[in-house]
Amino acid sequence: MKKLYEGKAKILYQTENEEILLTHFKDDATAFNAQKKGQIKGKGEINCSITSALYQWLEKQGIPTHFISKISINEMTVKSLRIIPLEVVVRNIASGSLCKQTGIPEGTVFSKPLIEFYLKDDNLGDPLLTPDRIHLLKLISQEQLEELIVTTRRINRHLQDFFLSCAITLVDFKLEYGLDQFDNILLADEISPDTCRLWDQMEKDPNGKILDKDRFRKDLGNVEAAYQEVQKRVLLRATKL
Amino acid sequence: MKKLYEGKAKILYQTENEEILLTHFKDDATAFNAQKKGQIKGKGEINCSITSALYQWLEKQGIPTHFISKISINEMTVKSLRIIPLEVVVRNIASGSLCKQTGIPEGTVFSKPLIEFYLKDDNLGDPLLTPDRIHLLKLISQEQLEELIVTTRRINRHLQDFFLSCAITLVDFKLEYGLDQFDNILLADEISPDTCRLWDQMEKDPNGKILDKDRFRKDLGNVEAAYQEVQKRVLLRATKL
Repeated sequence: MKKLYEGKAKILYQTENEEILLTHFKDDATAFNAQKKGQIKGKGEINCSITSALYQWLEKQGIPTHFISKISINEMTVKSLRIIPLEVVVRNIASGSLCKQTGIPEGTVFSKPLIEFYLKDDNLGDPLLTPDRIHLLKLISQEQLEELIVTTRRINRHLQDFFLSCAITLVDFKLEYGLDQFDNILLADEISPDTCRLWDQMEKDPNGKILDKDRFRKDLGNVEAAYQEVQKRVLLRATKL
Repeated sequence: MKKLYEGKAKILYQTENEEILLTHFKDDATAFNAQKKGQIKGKGEINCSITSALYQWLEKQGIPTHFISKISINEMTVKSLRIIPLEVVVRNIASGSLCKQTGIPEGTVFSKPLIEFYLKDDNLGDPLLTPDRIHLLKLISQEQLEELIVTTRRINRHLQDFFLSCAITLVDFKLEYGLDQFDNILLADEISPDTCRLWDQMEKDPNGKILDKDRFRKDLGNVEAAYQEVQKRVLLRATKL
């Protein structure tokens, strides 16, 4: 199969059907715009299974996604889309770059989710975009932007419910979207401990409760175990639905 | 007189009247969040005279400012305000941090001015704020934000006209505002080659036309001469009005 694109955590391959791509999940882990690099053993399999379970479940809730089928332990087929070069970040609780940039205290709970847009451009360091900058860059139309925001809010409500039933707090997460041949907006990329901040509600310790890539970013140890724990709870919950 | 606050380019002193402060303009120049430091000979006098002339003229156009009176070559009295911790940046042509952050080409002329807000916080590096972040930080109300935008657009139109008649293109500039005891929003701070990008319309050379602090930032030389040229044209124009 021809490799179309290799990203930091996934490889995209062409298939015989030009409308279908194959996503291979890697164990490679990066942070801080790839300044920090490493591996998380088993991450490819874990993130593939979590993403597959969540996307199937989101489809059932009426959210269109690129997911077609999980075809091996670390591969899934997806619809071929034109990816919108925006990282859509939803924040339910303040953490990470938002706090560093603005001084808003870590852990501040927002009364409504903060939805932010970052330019998907590694060379520019994925900069934060204002609505005006999104329009200037002509990345999407105003109507598409409004649809992204509405869909993102719906996904957030569904995911918050889902993770709550796993005794996990969905702190924040990143989404990417793409357009199909009819210009429908579909959820793309992945949802996993790489792209979410997830806090274990059974743990009080501020570091102990972290079940996501922050364990890798901050060298907190037990990275694999945390990813496995998320996988266990997500798959258990998914089978009940 | 008691020093109230020393900034990078100005010192604020108390006066006998608690509603009035004295602003002293310094020759000190800084760039890149004070990582680069230097002096521009005569800058204090030049910026004091340019700001005084422009603020008096803006007052005549119906823009309320903190300016009271120019009392010496590098000092003016101003109304004591509660400064809103926002840097309001108006961009008519793309330049500087906007281009570095987004990849928008230098010199792109905008069909309507881009008005942006940055948090006035040196420790945080004056980060760009989205409208949502402004609200989260509770810096001003939605009504005040709307008033800032409307007033800033008006100031931009007036300043563009003014500089056009000086054969100078107003590329972009930074404003600061404050609230008086009745919560009126007044233009504060300064307007000078320190806070504007100004291009000489008589010059074609991309570096030669620069009449502002970019000469200092980029080590282009003839910094004093550029500031003097702006002063000469602004004061000549102001006397005719």
